[in-house]
Amino acid sequence: MDKLGIIAGNGTMPQEVIAHCKSTNRDFFMVGLEPYVLPETLHDTPHISAKIGEIGRIFKHFHLNGVIEIVFAGGIQRPSLKELIPDLEGLKLMTKLAIKRMSDDNVFRILINEIEARGYKVVGAHEVMPHVLFEQGSYGSVKPSKSDMADIQKGVKVAKTMGELDVGQSCVVQEGIILAVEAREGTDNMIDRVAALKRTGRPPILVKIKKPGQDMRVDLPTIGPKTMEYLIKNGVKGLAVEAGSTIFLEKEKVLKMANEAKIFIFCSDFE
Amino acid sequence: MDKLGIIAGNGTMPQEVIAHCKSTNRDFFMVGLEPYVLPETLHDTPHISAKIGEIGRIFKHFHLNGVIEIVFAGGIQRPSLKELIPDLEGLKLMTKLAIKRMSDDNVFRILINEIEARGYKVVGAHEVMPHVLFEQGSYGSVKPSKSDMADIQKGVKVAKTMGELDVGQSCVVQEGIILAVEAREGTDNMIDRVAALKRTGRPPILVKIKKPGQDMRVDLPTIGPKTMEYLIKNGVKGLAVEAGSTIFLEKEKVLKMANEAKIFIFCSDFE
Repeated sequence: MDKLGIIAGNGTMPQEVIAHCKSTNRDFFMVGLEPYVLPETLHDTPHISAKIGEIGRIFKHFHLNGVIEIVFAGGIQRPSLKELIPDLEGLKLMTKLAIKRMSDDNVFRILINEIEARGYKVVGAHEVMPHVLFEQGSYGSVKPSKSDMADIQKGVKVAKTMGELDVGQSCVVQEGIILAVEAREGTDNMIDRVAALKRTGRPPILVKIKKPGQDMRVDLPTIGPKTMEYLIKNGVKGLAVEAGSTIFLEKEKVLKMANEAKIFIFCSDFE
Repeated sequence: MDKLGIIAGNGTMPQEVIAHCKSTNRDFFMVGLEPYVLPETLHDTPHISAKIGEIGRIFKHFHLNGVIEIVFAGGIQRPSLKELIPDLEGLKLMTKLAIKRMSDDNVFRILINEIEARGYKVVGAHEVMPHVLFEQGSYGSVKPSKSDMADIQKGVKVAKTMGELDVGQSCVVQEGIILAVEAREGTDNMIDRVAALKRTGRPPILVKIKKPGQDMRVDLPTIGPKTMEYLIKNGVKGLAVEAGSTIFLEKEKVLKMANEAKIFIFCSDFE
């Protein structure tokens, strides 16, 4: 298989990709994006650390290491222009990006075009490891009730609308009331408000879906043990995600946690 | 003038209404809703304290005190059905409210109809004290820049959409990026996330507008010294509100705070 270049952002996703490469004997080289990448991700891994603005240096090392395909793994927050200290190549790209006020999707599209213009192929994490995507159906031993399904519908409507406005991917709903909406704080921090906001009655549900029209190669919604920890800590008793476009990290561990805490995991295409 | 019944929720709005009644020699009687009303609001005020479910008792005291008009003042969070311990009258009303999953607006509409069916007239705080509403234009010594105006537009779009979905009234935007969206946590808590989320560059702006189609008699967006404290604490440098439907509490004090902190206050009808 072609050598894989991994552009590593935050979370444990980059480690999942590394583990997958190792288990399938696929060669890889990693660019750990500062300040996003977890230090342990880089341990014992062929890599350089780089700021997102150092485009020239990043491509030099991908080239020197014989990388053919490139995958984005883990979250990268869109930086403000002033936070970037670009090298010359980065400066040119940033000028393109700065031409107009752009959505995240546009920023990523330009980034991908830029990478592919240099002869690399950008692939999605789901293409590298297709088994990581959620499939339609209920996972675990708890199933959503009819009332839960109505809440899920409401949450999907809000999350999709927020996605269309390029705000965020998730919200928490309880008995028809939206308790919290994700913007820049990220899903985990958003869930962490729920303990203080939830009411007595049927417990709240997390709904997380990709932005409508989102490029599958970047920033897919991801669920893992950390998500589950936040759900448990905040008394959220259900999770609804979209089939075919949500990454399921450490599935076995997550299912064990969900079953023990009686949290349902429901997956649909929500058309 | 007709005797005014004040249904008092949280914040300093009830105290503003009391002060206004006193300065215009208008008689009033207050129902302090537990657990929302601030204890100092009830001090030296003709009142009873009541839970929102005690409808029968509330009307009995309005009747005994000769109340003709009723005004809602201050925020009341929509309670979950289980949190209510209603009396008999309250139970009947709650049954109506429980017939279907309802938006806040619907809940308030039923509540108002119920009150008016008993011969009372429900008026808005802006009718009791018309001078409290924001008018079109820029307040204070700082004006929004052209880039700020673009951010305001983006924020208005998101806040209006969230209002249509009955989620919340406000959001914070910075350089085209929505940093935070208000749901059940309320505006102040939402602003309080911004210090951790904001980037370097042009500072963030709070946009707060009423829900489209919202009944002017309940839950109008309100700006006061506490809002300003949170803006200052979090480095938010602008505030955009809607003309004719936003309550401006303690105007002089707020303008002084805004000028000192170089925060602009912009008001438009955002059509």
